[in-house]
Amino acid sequence: MTTNPEQPAPSGAHEIPPEILTLRASIDNIDAALMHLLAERFKFTRRVGELKAAGGLPPADPSRDRQQIERLTGIASAAGLDPDFAEAFREFIVHEVIRHHEHIAAEHAAAGGSVPVLDTYS
Amino acid sequence: MTTNPEQPAPSGAHEIPPEILTLRASIDNIDAALMHLLAERFKFTRRVGELKAAGGLPPADPSRDRQQIERLTGIASAAGLDPDFAEAFREFIVHEVIRHHEHIAAEHAAAGGSVPVLDTYS
Repeated sequence: MTTNPEQPAPSGAHEIPPEILTLRASIDNIDAALMHLLAERFKFTRRVGELKAAGGLPPADPSRDRQQIERLTGIASAAGLDPDFAEAFREFIVHEVIRHHEHIAAEHAAAGGSVPVLDTYS
Repeated sequence: MTTNPEQPAPSGAHEIPPEILTLRASIDNIDAALMHLLAERFKFTRRVGELKAAGGLPPADPSRDRQQIERLTGIASAAGLDPDFAEAFREFIVHEVIRHHEHIAAEHAAAGGSVPVLDTYS
């Protein structure tokens, strides 16, 4: 559903100024882009989880974690984002990746595999 | 971080297969895109916060919230994402927006304004 900047939203007594409606339409577009990028990202991490399960690789890779934290902090600062937010965002995504990889590990174990995959962030 | 009780702590001694390295490069690209989109998103919500503070609009807009939740849930489902994840993601971002808007409200109050801005998601 797209917000129509020409018409006030039916949100009670307050009329929303057109500029806010225009901004909301842009926010909605960005949110759609974020959702689609995250969907692609989880495809990649899911594949990493499968490869690690198949290859007997350890789940965590602290050097990869450090590299990602350093890199994202730098990107966030350059883009005008709070680096602490960038790290919180990374941790939020990691949490979801772990949930996916626990699911992959369970499937792998059910299929006779012996290597649990509880990867972190890939 | 989740650990694997079956294996010793990762030591960096494992050689990472090329396919995983390729996937990681794509994950890194997506992360950079996510950071930059989020930076743009916060610019828009910051402007919404300023407009609400200047116009004396109430911070929360439940109908906007409902519309966003419904819309993002639909986008997530279509993109193959868990709708619960989409909602958790929205709430994570809202938390950061509220933090920004508290900052704007404090600045507005310091400048003589009287309307606290504790917007939710805009």
